[in-house]
Amino acid sequence: MDNSTNFSAHVTVRIKKDSVFFGPGIAQLLQGVDTCGSVRDAALGMGLSYSKAWKVLNASEKELGYSLVVRHHGGKQGGKTTLSEKGRFWLDKYMLFEEALKKSADDIFAQMLKEEEGNV
Amino acid sequence: MDNSTNFSAHVTVRIKKDSVFFGPGIAQLLQGVDTCGSVRDAALGMGLSYSKAWKVLNASEKELGYSLVVRHHGGKQGGKTTLSEKGRFWLDKYMLFEEALKKSADDIFAQMLKEEEGNV
Repeated sequence: MDNSTNFSAHVTVRIKKDSVFFGPGIAQLLQGVDTCGSVRDAALGMGLSYSKAWKVLNASEKELGYSLVVRHHGGKQGGKTTLSEKGRFWLDKYMLFEEALKKSADDIFAQMLKEEEGNV
Repeated sequence: MDNSTNFSAHVTVRIKKDSVFFGPGIAQLLQGVDTCGSVRDAALGMGLSYSKAWKVLNASEKELGYSLVVRHHGGKQGGKTTLSEKGRFWLDKYMLFEEALKKSADDIFAQMLKEEEGNV
């Protein structure tokens, strides 16, 4: 018999309005934009094409009805792309939600296997 | 501003040993086998090819080191495929785990959006 400690639970969280607008992909992309100040570099960092990255962003923004990133032309932040206020809101919320749910999943899963030790 | 009740959370659960061996796909397949008594009919019911269904099953069984389904030749259950004891164990556990986690996700998500009403 296997030892139940060999098993682990993995959770993927997505947030939906009429359709899904936020999940692991766009979360990683927005984190990259926040770090790099560029959609191109963020996309590159996760092995995504520039056009695919904008496709992901545009689909999410269309579903929400507002922008998640802001392009800055000229001035101090010229050429940079940053998160909009709403972009940061959803990224922060998603990360907190994912963290809380992973904790919850680990707890439920550990309890479940504990009850059944020896059966798996 | 959107009403936060427009949003909902969606969770996908996978169970891993060295690699993932159980998720929504194999759960649906085993439920189909349990209902139809046949991998072919179960695969058909979910738009999966027969060979792909066995590939999914074999990968999971290889990771676990035991069979999730039993093929019956001759006798009363001749030609039927049923869930093995372990197959039923993992299917039951997965369904309970998924249900508990969905409940947990709804609770965490509702609480989170409630705190931020008006911001989304």
